[in-house]
Amino acid sequence: MSLSTYTVTGMTCGHCVSSVKEEVGEVPGVTGVEVDLASGRVDVSGETLDDAAIRAAIEEAGYKVAG
Amino acid sequence: MSLSTYTVTGMTCGHCVSSVKEEVGEVPGVTGVEVDLASGRVDVSGETLDDAAIRAAIEEAGYKVAG
Repeated sequence: MSLSTYTVTGMTCGHCVSSVKEEVGEVPGVTGVEVDLASGRVDVSGETLDDAAIRAAIEEAGYKVAG
Repeated sequence: MSLSTYTVTGMTCGHCVSSVKEEVGEVPGVTGVEVDLASGRVDVSGETLDDAAIRAAIEEAGYKVAG
């Protein structure tokens, strides 16, 4: 079980949170996604996590990964 | 053909615009909905417009009608 945390900018509302959860949740290996809108914190859990694919999914949803 | 304009607060992104368009678009009699995110302006067109139903739809989408 792995856990990766990202800081995502550009999310402004619950719809944005849902979009990020949906896109990241579709990445193979991901079993859980938690998003805190206020801080932009995105916690991703799964057996094996593909960092590049998760970052790509966040950007595909229309948001930026900070750092 | 009638046109009504509302000022809606609380929309923060394109998802919010889509939600308002969808909810208002389902009100009987409504044939067109245009939303300007920056100003909150919502233009609703149709043959006969039910003002109360349109306001209710906007609030159901999660936003407030100003005035």
